[in-house]
Amino acid sequence: MTSKPTPTPDEPGRYAFDGIDRVLHEKARLGILTSLLAHDTGLVFNELRELCVLTDGNLSRHLQTLQEAQLVEIWKGHKGRRPQTLVRLTDTGRTRFLGYLAVLESIVSGALASAKAEETTAAPADRLGFTAG
Amino acid sequence: MTSKPTPTPDEPGRYAFDGIDRVLHEKARLGILTSLLAHDTGLVFNELRELCVLTDGNLSRHLQTLQEAQLVEIWKGHKGRRPQTLVRLTDTGRTRFLGYLAVLESIVSGALASAKAEETTAAPADRLGFTAG
Repeated sequence: MTSKPTPTPDEPGRYAFDGIDRVLHEKARLGILTSLLAHDTGLVFNELRELCVLTDGNLSRHLQTLQEAQLVEIWKGHKGRRPQTLVRLTDTGRTRFLGYLAVLESIVSGALASAKAEETTAAPADRLGFTAG
Repeated sequence: MTSKPTPTPDEPGRYAFDGIDRVLHEKARLGILTSLLAHDTGLVFNELRELCVLTDGNLSRHLQTLQEAQLVEIWKGHKGRRPQTLVRLTDTGRTRFLGYLAVLESIVSGALASAKAEETTAAPADRLGFTAG
């Protein structure tokens, strides 16, 4: 059995961030997914729009992207007489979003730790062996 | 003196994430900025390209975006006889990136906390008052 070694700070690909899925990472979709994660029973379209401050068109477009990736499910129905759209995280969506959040958490804590380490060890601003011109 | 109240979970705009700047948030640029944060004295183009696993064209394009936003500075020079490009975070870049990381940290911890809260309090999957059709 082989196991993938933990990358050392300067290993090639160290900052390629393969665990960051652009479908989840995009700012508006990050907001939508975070809203839904906090509301397991779902949110109707207008609630989501107000929580995330998106236009109807933008919200629709992002929901379509999320639905195509099977991260959310979209239900048409009524509340009283008014037609409504209900949006919920799928089980896949929940699992993948939690996985993404864990990756993000490790990137943030790694970045903050390396910034702190640089503060204490940083050499003068000119890089060894690098000459202008 | 007035102070902005802490938003309650369902306040409009709660998930608009205004603190997420798309210039910093984009996946490849997040990798570039994290690399540079860990290397205060800068990285040459080829080092960055390998750490972030980007093509020359992609890296150039993202560096231009970051330079236009005054987040990085780009230096032309030589290492021995070979022409080189050195990239460093500006002071502004460092400050703004650390601010962004703090926002991201709070989003992630908030999202994980709300997911945990939902697990313990979640109602059955059908939303009250919502009927299909």
